[in-house]
Amino acid sequence: MIGRVGTVTAISTPPGKGGVAVIRVSGDDALAVAEKCFIPRDGKPLASHPPRRAVYGNITLDGKIVDDGLLLYFPAPHSYTGEDVIELSCHGGSLLSGMVLEATLKAGAVPAPAGEFTRRAYLAGKLTLSDVEAVGLAIDAVTPAQVRLAASDSRNRLRDAVGELHDRLLSLISSLYAGIDYPDEDLADLSSEEVADGVEKILSDLASLRDTYRTGRAIREGVSAVIAGKPNVGKSAVFNRLLGCDAAIVTPIPGTTRDVLEYPLPVGRALLRLADTAGLRDTADPVECIGVERAKNRIGEAEVLLLVLDTSRPLEAEDRDLIDLARNFPGVALLLLNKADLPAVWGKDALPEGSPAAFEVSAGTGAGLDAVKEYLSGALTDDRLSLGEDAIIASARQAAAISSACDDLSGCLDSLRRGVPIDAAASLAESALASLSEVDGRTVSGEIVDEIFSRFCVGK
Amino acid sequence: MIGRVGTVTAISTPPGKGGVAVIRVSGDDALAVAEKCFIPRDGKPLASHPPRRAVYGNITLDGKIVDDGLLLYFPAPHSYTGEDVIELSCHGGSLLSGMVLEATLKAGAVPAPAGEFTRRAYLAGKLTLSDVEAVGLAIDAVTPAQVRLAASDSRNRLRDAVGELHDRLLSLISSLYAGIDYPDEDLADLSSEEVADGVEKILSDLASLRDTYRTGRAIREGVSAVIAGKPNVGKSAVFNRLLGCDAAIVTPIPGTTRDVLEYPLPVGRALLRLADTAGLRDTADPVECIGVERAKNRIGEAEVLLLVLDTSRPLEAEDRDLIDLARNFPGVALLLLNKADLPAVWGKDALPEGSPAAFEVSAGTGAGLDAVKEYLSGALTDDRLSLGEDAIIASARQAAAISSACDDLSGCLDSLRRGVPIDAAASLAESALASLSEVDGRTVSGEIVDEIFSRFCVGK
Repeated sequence: MIGRVGTVTAISTPPGKGGVAVIRVSGDDALAVAEKCFIPRDGKPLASHPPRRAVYGNITLDGKIVDDGLLLYFPAPHSYTGEDVIELSCHGGSLLSGMVLEATLKAGAVPAPAGEFTRRAYLAGKLTLSDVEAVGLAIDAVTPAQVRLAASDSRNRLRDAVGELHDRLLSLISSLYAGIDYPDEDLADLSSEEVADGVEKILSDLASLRDTYRTGRAIREGVSAVIAGKPNVGKSAVFNRLLGCDAAIVTPIPGTTRDVLEYPLPVGRALLRLADTAGLRDTADPVECIGVERAKNRIGEAEVLLLVLDTSRPLEAEDRDLIDLARNFPGVALLLLNKADLPAVWGKDALPEGSPAAFEVSAGTGAGLDAVKEYLSGALTDDRLSLGEDAIIASARQAAAISSACDDLSGCLDSLRRGVPIDAAASLAESALASLSEVDGRTVSGEIVDEIFSRFCVGK
Repeated sequence: MIGRVGTVTAISTPPGKGGVAVIRVSGDDALAVAEKCFIPRDGKPLASHPPRRAVYGNITLDGKIVDDGLLLYFPAPHSYTGEDVIELSCHGGSLLSGMVLEATLKAGAVPAPAGEFTRRAYLAGKLTLSDVEAVGLAIDAVTPAQVRLAASDSRNRLRDAVGELHDRLLSLISSLYAGIDYPDEDLADLSSEEVADGVEKILSDLASLRDTYRTGRAIREGVSAVIAGKPNVGKSAVFNRLLGCDAAIVTPIPGTTRDVLEYPLPVGRALLRLADTAGLRDTADPVECIGVERAKNRIGEAEVLLLVLDTSRPLEAEDRDLIDLARNFPGVALLLLNKADLPAVWGKDALPEGSPAAFEVSAGTGAGLDAVKEYLSGALTDDRLSLGEDAIIASARQAAAISSACDDLSGCLDSLRRGVPIDAAASLAESALASLSEVDGRTVSGEIVDEIFSRFCVGK
């Protein structure tokens, strides 16, 4: 983990042209840096202006004015990072904001590594690790459900839920230790059976919380989905129709698609990472051959399989093989009976028993595809969970911590019920408690912190 | 010209992902809009916070929190637009900033057309038209000289210089009218000769100012430059070497370049819009043929011609024709005697009299090309003009206004010297005065204002 490296500076707004750009400076020398490159228009020294109040002035580089803009000074500890922070707003030109950045560098700041401001906020205790993950999610969000999952009230609900379970477990552990330390006295306020019942209740609540990650993950990380099938059944047409744009080239020529094309597709609150693939067949074309290989690999990695079949042509042995593939698919599989706008030569009744859910669709008209999206939304997220009120696990790290707590508590309960020495049970319960502390990131290792920050951009 | 359309809102930072995005709201209802979508964390009403002071809180959409961020309130008239302005800083996600924008729309604001904030600032008299042009230049700037030209001190120097000439002219006009109104009395403080001398002095100062546009334009708008020559003399190699990157494909095959490739190249304070073109020859290849046609058109439009010749091969009739083209080129022409790293079969002494400046260069090693840039910088900008101290005309609109003032003053001087009735001279002097008022944009037409704003982006 990189520690504090003095006073850092970066352009915090997105790269490119716009009306406004913001350059952020954080560290002990932030005000001194600002005093060297910003001249208030009212002629008064910067330090004489009230904190957090916008000051209008000129930004200078090498003694020459490069722009006029606003400066905000947030003295420590009431700032994003907990350090002294300066935010300079200038006009949003690419080169111009670069020159304002240069002005802060020449005034003594050093370039901020990616994620440095948020890292400092975390080190100063201004943000928990869950908050940090939420910042990343908020910036990367491509669906409204992701934005809501990242919002502070979602984090607060999860923190409260975990905190409440943490406190209940702590109280049970105290009872266990009272029993160990004074076995013959009647100091323990709970019997061993009562402790076991309490642990069982926490385990059940914790398991419910753990299961919310199915929804949290579908919202946050998206789900890998693949459209597959024989050549010319309309896979690319289905793909385009689902996405609502001409993402894939569609022709009547079999083997048109060769590369794997992936696009994000929100379905309900979930996000599909939807891939179109080459039609599955034996082929002599070397490029198509690579495409078929890639299609197969993609099916192997996917969690959702959309198998496209053509009901305007008779079912063949190859179709039956593909339906078998879908029946044995370990994730969510759907059969899309495409070309419903043409006369059908077979229907749902021709499908073998145990086939996945089948939908009559038409990529040509779009018929039936809304039902497919609705089915997927239900299959991938838990509709009982409301993003407005429920605690939902948002990150794999949180899910792993809660799963680990569940495993330990399950072992603890087992020990208590089998009447083995109570020390073993207490030790497992303490391990579960430690895992719960990790959910907010209070006790995680430096490697995990580094891994989380490695995904951040400069200026955040 | 679009007038005020209520309270407007837009994302003011560049599109894309970053640490921070800023959503700006301007108009009478700005505070009311903010109150509907922003909840201060301290629980106090927004209006109870001091103006221009950053307030931390939650941003809500449809009653749900979408992000936490900072709000700044700038009450009219002390804001960018002169109206009530709210600036909301949120996390810099593409979708997230879009949702915050949506929150301000649902709270009653309407989307701001491109350039609307700056247009309102102009209409409120917060910015002159020169300021507005400078905002556009600052955002689009690709060279530091452009940034400096856009900075407020450059505008102030031009405004002061024009203002001083304006006042001198006004005073002379008063004298002229005194002479007209009371021809027999001795009220006129200046004789007609003295007035003529004064006008002559103003005209001379104004003409000097007008000539600064050569530098201002080279800085602001850049200069169209073209690299031309026979096939295989190394035009694309020279192009790449000047740019310092592999912009054009280079092969030993004649006719490799066909499209016109244009890249910006700063030389000193000027900016070249440098184009590489197809080698000039008769060819049967239909694509190359179009390329040669485009190369010729480009030479016809260019202000700078860099004619590349190959000194490792004998001078041919075609080379002599091209050298003639360069001799007769109406702008700045240079001969680049390329392949100076190979044994030369001819040199500068083989060039006919009256040839443009010739430079021995090597695209292979880069030798000689710095001298070319230095020469161009000197030929395109006036080195006597310092961006730190001198008034420089920055826009074609300003240049046209000053040119028009020069023409009128020249006519005025002529009338005064020829002793024609003084009314005609006074009328021309007044017309010149009006043109000077246009430089800052106080009296220009709505069409000119619309034309300037049409180049702005949303959020500025």
